[in-house]
Amino acid sequence: MEEEKGDGSRVLLLHNAVIVTMDNDLRVFQNGSVVVAGDRIEAIGRSSDILREFSDRANETLDLEGRFLLPGFINTHVHTSQQLARGIADDVDLMTWLHARIWPYESNMTEEDSYLSTLLCGIELIRSGVTCFAEAGGQHVSGMARAVELLGLRACLVQSTMDSGQGLPTNWSTVSIDHCIESQIELYKRHHNTANGRIRVWFGLRQIMNATDELIAATREIAQELKTGIHMHVAEIPFENELVMDTRKVDHGTVSYLDKLGLLRSNLLAAHSVWVNDDEIRSLANADVKVSHCPAAAMRMLGFAPIKEMLDLGVCVSLGTDGAPSNNRMSIVDEMYVASLINKGREAYIKGSTSPTALPAEVMLKMVTANGAKAVLWDDDIGSIEAGKKADMVIINPFSWSMLPLHDSISSLVYCMRTENIESVMCNGQWIMKDKKILNINEEEVISLAVKASSNILKRAGISLPQRFNLIC
Amino acid sequence: MEEEKGDGSRVLLLHNAVIVTMDNDLRVFQNGSVVVAGDRIEAIGRSSDILREFSDRANETLDLEGRFLLPGFINTHVHTSQQLARGIADDVDLMTWLHARIWPYESNMTEEDSYLSTLLCGIELIRSGVTCFAEAGGQHVSGMARAVELLGLRACLVQSTMDSGQGLPTNWSTVSIDHCIESQIELYKRHHNTANGRIRVWFGLRQIMNATDELIAATREIAQELKTGIHMHVAEIPFENELVMDTRKVDHGTVSYLDKLGLLRSNLLAAHSVWVNDDEIRSLANADVKVSHCPAAAMRMLGFAPIKEMLDLGVCVSLGTDGAPSNNRMSIVDEMYVASLINKGREAYIKGSTSPTALPAEVMLKMVTANGAKAVLWDDDIGSIEAGKKADMVIINPFSWSMLPLHDSISSLVYCMRTENIESVMCNGQWIMKDKKILNINEEEVISLAVKASSNILKRAGISLPQRFNLIC
Repeated sequence: MEEEKGDGSRVLLLHNAVIVTMDNDLRVFQNGSVVVAGDRIEAIGRSSDILREFSDRANETLDLEGRFLLPGFINTHVHTSQQLARGIADDVDLMTWLHARIWPYESNMTEEDSYLSTLLCGIELIRSGVTCFAEAGGQHVSGMARAVELLGLRACLVQSTMDSGQGLPTNWSTVSIDHCIESQIELYKRHHNTANGRIRVWFGLRQIMNATDELIAATREIAQELKTGIHMHVAEIPFENELVMDTRKVDHGTVSYLDKLGLLRSNLLAAHSVWVNDDEIRSLANADVKVSHCPAAAMRMLGFAPIKEMLDLGVCVSLGTDGAPSNNRMSIVDEMYVASLINKGREAYIKGSTSPTALPAEVMLKMVTANGAKAVLWDDDIGSIEAGKKADMVIINPFSWSMLPLHDSISSLVYCMRTENIESVMCNGQWIMKDKKILNINEEEVISLAVKASSNILKRAGISLPQRFNLIC
Repeated sequence: MEEEKGDGSRVLLLHNAVIVTMDNDLRVFQNGSVVVAGDRIEAIGRSSDILREFSDRANETLDLEGRFLLPGFINTHVHTSQQLARGIADDVDLMTWLHARIWPYESNMTEEDSYLSTLLCGIELIRSGVTCFAEAGGQHVSGMARAVELLGLRACLVQSTMDSGQGLPTNWSTVSIDHCIESQIELYKRHHNTANGRIRVWFGLRQIMNATDELIAATREIAQELKTGIHMHVAEIPFENELVMDTRKVDHGTVSYLDKLGLLRSNLLAAHSVWVNDDEIRSLANADVKVSHCPAAAMRMLGFAPIKEMLDLGVCVSLGTDGAPSNNRMSIVDEMYVASLINKGREAYIKGSTSPTALPAEVMLKMVTANGAKAVLWDDDIGSIEAGKKADMVIINPFSWSMLPLHDSISSLVYCMRTENIESVMCNGQWIMKDKKILNINEEEVISLAVKASSNILKRAGISLPQRFNLIC
C-alpha cells in the first residue's frame, strides 16, 4: 500500500465486496470492485477485471472480504435541531407536544445549540449509513451548516419558515413575508454550494397552517428562480385538511390547495403526506412532487400514509426519520424495517388482511437510495454506485448474529440489518466513519457538550417533565 | 475485591445504578444497589444504605456508574428452531410461507440443527436483554434444552404438536393423539426443572387447524395434572376463525371455541390473538389467559391485535418476537419500539386519529417484565427486582449517541434503547453476558456451525429462493 497522494488525485480501490449498485439495471456484483478517484467513482465492475485494470494506479487497495457495499443512504426528512429534545415529548397528545414542548424548545435555541444538535444528530445519521439528508427546518441554518461541513455529510438545509398561525411563541409571531424570503435568500447566498459542494440551501414552509398564500407564492417563485427545492410538512393530520377546506375553499385538503396555488412541482419535497385522497395522489404523481414517508413518526402522531397507492401511481417516495421528539430513533436502518412492517400491516385495514408481499425489500432499498436522491434533486450525483457519480457509499458487515444466516441478501439488508452492522461510511470520496469510528469530530466531547446544552435549553424554556414512576432519591 | 467463593454463598453487590425495579410500587432508585447471594436477590435499596449494611459480606462489589439496572426481559413467543431459517420466507404470501418454506424447513431439521438454531437464537436473545423466553414450539425439545442449559438462559420449552390438518409434510401427518401426549410427557420427565431449575417443559398445541378436540382435551388435562402451561397460536388470521365457525359451530372463532372446550385457563399462553372480538377479549380476561403480542410478525402476516382493548379489560399481555422467518429481528428491545408505534397508530383506524398517549412507555416495560413473568407462570421468581426473587437482571449503558440526552429515562428505555445499549445480562445469579461478551459459548464457532447447518437443511428440504436483483457473478 503506497502513501496517499493529495485528495484530488487519490485513487482508492475497494474490492471483494457484494456491491448492491441500485443503478437502473439493479445490478448486484457478487464479487465486485469500485475505483474512487478524488470525490467520484471512476469505475465499477467484477473484482477480477478492476484489479487487473486499476491496481497499478491505486494509492490504496482495500479488501472488503465479502462485505456489502451500498450507495450511502438518504434521509429525506430530519429535524437536526431537535436532537437535543429527544424524550421531551413522549406519550403526550399533539397539542401538548407542539405548544408545551416543541415550540418552547425550538424558540429557545441559540445558533450554537443548533450546531451541537446537528453534530449529535449527525453521529446517529452516519452510524446508520446516511451520507445525505434533507433538513426538515430549524431556526439556525448557519449552525447546521457549520456542523454538516465538519461532519463531512451532504445536506439540503432549510430554515423553518412561518408567517402566520395561532399559538406561536412571541419571538416568532411578528415575522413578515419579506423577512421570511430575504432571510432565506441571505442563507442561500452564504451557504449554498459550500463545503466542497456538499451543502445546498433550500426554501422552507413549515406547514399550511403557518403560511399565508402570499408566502407560498413568494417561496414558489424564488425557489424556481434559484433552481432549488422547497421542503414542507404536508397533510399531516385530519384537522389540517378540515381547516384548509373551511378557510380556503377547496374540496379536500392541503394537497388540493397547494395544487391550486401552483406549488405542486418537481422541486417540492412534501413530508408525511398522510391524509391525501386518490385525486391528490394523482396530482402529486403528475407534478412529480417528492414524498418523504416517515413511518415511525406517522404511527405516533399522524396516521397511515397510503404509500402503496402512491408507489403504484408513480409518486417518488423516499424515507425520513423525522426529528427525535417524534421518533427517538434517527436511524434510517430501523426506518426501513418499520416502513416495511407498517405498510404490509396497513393492507389489513384496506383489504381485510395484511399483505406480506407489499413493499418488498427491494422497494425499501430503492426508497433510501435512488428515490432519496431524486427527492433531494441530486440524482445526477448520488443514489447509486455508478461510474461518474459522487463516491457516497456504505460498507456493511453482515457476518454477525444479527444478519446471519444470509439466505436472502437483499431482504437481510432491510429486515435484519441494524446500525451495528454499518461499519464504514464514505461521503464525497472521504471516509466519515471508518471501522465504526466517526472521523471528523471527537464523539465523546460532542455528546458531553450536547447534553449540557440540552439541559440549559429546557431550563430557559421552562420545560419540566412529570415522573412516570415512583422515584426514590 | 476478594476472590469469589463457591456459587451458593457468593455475594455480589451492584451499586450506583438507576434501578427500575418493576415491582408493584413501581419504585425507581435514582442511586440504587442490589445484593445478589447465589441465584437470588437478597436485598435492594439506596446505595448508601446497602453499601453500609452489606459491604463486609460482599465477595465482589461492582460500581455501575449510573447505568440502568432492570429485570431481565421476557420474550413470550419465540421459535428458537426457526433461527436458521431467517430470510427464507421474506415478502411471500402466507401459503407459500407455510407450505413451501417453513414446513419443509422444520420437517427436515435434526435434533443437532435445533440445538444450533437455539444457540444462535440465544445469542440474539441475550444481546437484547432477554433472560427468559417461552418457546413457541419446534420439533426437537431435547436439542433446545441442551442449548438453553449451555447458554444459561431460563425457558419454558414446548414441542410443536399437531394431530391433524391439511398439507402437512408426510413424516408429520400420521401422529396419533396418544403419541402427541406421551412424547410430551416423556420430554417433561426428562427436562422439566433441569438446568438448576431454569428449564420448564410445557405442552404445545400448534394451532386450532392442526388439533382435534380430543387432543385439546387431553392437553388440557395433562397440563392441569402436571401443573404446567400450554402454549398455542390463537386467532391468527380471519380464515382460521371462519373455518372454526364453519366446521365447529360457534358464533365467532378460535377463542369462542376454546372457551367451549374449557381450554381458556390461567395456564394458557395464547400467541398473537389478533382476530378476537370484545366478548372473546372478556373471556380471555375472565379466564386469566395470557396473551403474547408479537407486533412485527403480526404486521407482516396477521393484522392489528386489539391490545389496548385487552389491557383495558385486564388481559395480561406480554411481548414476543416470534420466529426469524416472521420478523427477522429477534430483539425484544426493537419489539417494544415497534409495539408502541403500531398500537399508537392502530387508534387511527379505530378512532380516526392516532393516539400518541396509547400504550405509553411504562406499559411497554411492564409487558416485557412483570406481565412476561405472569405469562410464563414464573412471577413468584422473576419479572421484577425484589428481595427474594431470582437474580435475572440486565445492565443498560445509556451514555451513547443512541440514548442521549436522557430527558425522560423511562421512555428512553423503550423508544431509544437498542441492543447496542445492553451491556451485561445475568440469569439465575450468573452472568451470561458481561461487557457485551457472551460468556458460556464461543460465539464465532456457533455462528459458523449454524450457518453451515442452515445451508444443509435448505438443501435437504429442496428450498431455493429466487434472485431479487440482477446478480452478476
